[in-house]
Amino acid sequence: MADIGLDRIRRAQIETERAGLSALLVTPSADLVYLAGYDPPPLERLTCLVVRPAHDPVLLVPELEHPRALESPVGKRIDIATWRDGEDPYGALSPLLPDEGRLGATDQMWALHLLGAQRARPHAEFVPGSTVLAKLRALKDPDELELLSRAARGADEAFRQLVESRLEGLREEEVAVLLGGLLKDAGHEEVNFTIVAAGPNGASPHHEPGGRAIRGGDPVVLDFGGRVGRYCSDISRTVSVGDPPSGFEEVYEAVRDAQETAFRAVGPGVRAAEIDRVARDVIERAGFGERFIHRTGHGIGLEAHEAPYISPDNQQPLEPGMCFSIEPGIYLEGRFGVRIEDIVAVTEIGATRLNRASRDLERVG
Amino acid sequence: MADIGLDRIRRAQIETERAGLSALLVTPSADLVYLAGYDPPPLERLTCLVVRPAHDPVLLVPELEHPRALESPVGKRIDIATWRDGEDPYGALSPLLPDEGRLGATDQMWALHLLGAQRARPHAEFVPGSTVLAKLRALKDPDELELLSRAARGADEAFRQLVESRLEGLREEEVAVLLGGLLKDAGHEEVNFTIVAAGPNGASPHHEPGGRAIRGGDPVVLDFGGRVGRYCSDISRTVSVGDPPSGFEEVYEAVRDAQETAFRAVGPGVRAAEIDRVARDVIERAGFGERFIHRTGHGIGLEAHEAPYISPDNQQPLEPGMCFSIEPGIYLEGRFGVRIEDIVAVTEIGATRLNRASRDLERVG
Repeated sequence: MADIGLDRIRRAQIETERAGLSALLVTPSADLVYLAGYDPPPLERLTCLVVRPAHDPVLLVPELEHPRALESPVGKRIDIATWRDGEDPYGALSPLLPDEGRLGATDQMWALHLLGAQRARPHAEFVPGSTVLAKLRALKDPDELELLSRAARGADEAFRQLVESRLEGLREEEVAVLLGGLLKDAGHEEVNFTIVAAGPNGASPHHEPGGRAIRGGDPVVLDFGGRVGRYCSDISRTVSVGDPPSGFEEVYEAVRDAQETAFRAVGPGVRAAEIDRVARDVIERAGFGERFIHRTGHGIGLEAHEAPYISPDNQQPLEPGMCFSIEPGIYLEGRFGVRIEDIVAVTEIGATRLNRASRDLERVG
Repeated sequence: MADIGLDRIRRAQIETERAGLSALLVTPSADLVYLAGYDPPPLERLTCLVVRPAHDPVLLVPELEHPRALESPVGKRIDIATWRDGEDPYGALSPLLPDEGRLGATDQMWALHLLGAQRARPHAEFVPGSTVLAKLRALKDPDELELLSRAARGADEAFRQLVESRLEGLREEEVAVLLGGLLKDAGHEEVNFTIVAAGPNGASPHHEPGGRAIRGGDPVVLDFGGRVGRYCSDISRTVSVGDPPSGFEEVYEAVRDAQETAFRAVGPGVRAAEIDRVARDVIERAGFGERFIHRTGHGIGLEAHEAPYISPDNQQPLEPGMCFSIEPGIYLEGRFGVRIEDIVAVTEIGATRLNRASRDLERVG
């Protein structure tokens, strides 16, 4: 990770003030990694960065993690406060908080900690921290774009290797393990998820790979991703093992067309909901509108899912530097599913695909 | 995982009523695994099991995860409600909630979801779900004890293998990778954490293994764990690479004595704080009281840290079936640290250690 110094915390201070919040409370999560480069696991012991307009930031940590916090990228540049096991951590947090106003809390903050903070400030109004941080994190800088590109290329390579393997006879869970290994071979340091859904299981978008053996004639939905330099990859392709069942190719072409049409619609100033609508229109015209049962995509970065969400209710205009998935799908219960997904980045004049794996229907052995 | 049916949900209903709560909201977490055997990743899309006294439980899931939820152990035994991308999930949650009263929310519920539930019920009082669930989860049944024992034995075996290796010259991060592999070889399906802290780094209890090469004369704190059948292991040992520095053996003996004395104090009816006090007394008498900078232990089960916490402020009496760590430590800044940790289970007449690795000082090459 590039040395981010205090730049991002300073920008968060400005955005906190601009959003009318009196403080931002950031617990271990991608938010804390983004702002401070500090990445302890989220646990029952409270760690919390407090960012306030016109105040120096303070990082509150359990005493036993003080040395670890000191060694973090911002450890020697900001004040660190500690509390000790047996003390009330929310009592230690209290003097760091404004007396009232609207306070943002990391979207992933544990309820345990949010309830503790709410007890410490019963008259404050708490709102999701994404009110401030979603916008900052959505606009990727060149270093972040480079990591997302490397992650995407690694996922492409894993797919390329997989389709050269023989899948017929393997169980879904075996293909999932294979995919995980291929992601690591392609430079991923972590595997986040590997969906392998064969035949009728493909109609479940978030199917857990199980014991079903893949047979000739099975369409197989593959959706997988991991991390490179802590930034995420996420790609979906649907392949056919041998000849696909009747009706499959029509569905495949509708999804592929929706994916392509949505990609072509991306550009600065276009609303996220418009991208969703464009994809949905193609699938509705093909007669499968009711079987496209999820949003068209999600932002990606330090998290596999983050802003901007490409959904019917997100009127946010796209801006250069935003990265997200475009992944329409059609799910036919008892028969099969099709999903095709690439990560794309908004540029000054349009968009570019970070994934380059072929979207032609691959027939594998 | 054993077929838990609806038994645990029914017990949670009873405990919810007994605790004076009108509902329990359970999002993806160890709580949801414990109650329903359902284990989707926690994400921005709301999944929430609602448990209420005198009402049938309902599982609310995103529509695209409906097939996955149906396939979960309780999928065909409880009502499943769905919401679709673009709809307000808290609007979908609202009709499942009581109009008012005290509502418990999973300790690890995302702030995003808790704030959404609070908006849906602005006059309700939300409290941590552990108010009800900590007690249920703390009392392990025989199947859970068996899995915790298997996990502990696997960690013991990984330690036994490690001390037969040559550590001198390896970097901390290399030893961490080695330990991860040994845990997998010993039957762990997942590695949660591998702390390797050599020489002065041992004074940081949650040190992140780094590039420091291990030298002759280094004490090395090893603290690692993972999962077997989803239940956690967690063990700490401190070894000496060659001859330890002056003063080390005195510190080692104080920690070992504190660990042993605390173990001998464990039994039904003894308060958790008393176990902490007993360990702390030994270390204070040895003159290192100020350098024992954390609680004595934590419960363990589906999570690496859970109730009961063995800390100065926990007056809860121990009961047979509770499992927790006893892990006193002494941390001397700039010099070294020592921590010795076993998982123990409370029995009808006292306690038993689940870890059996030797607590004698191991000198390794």
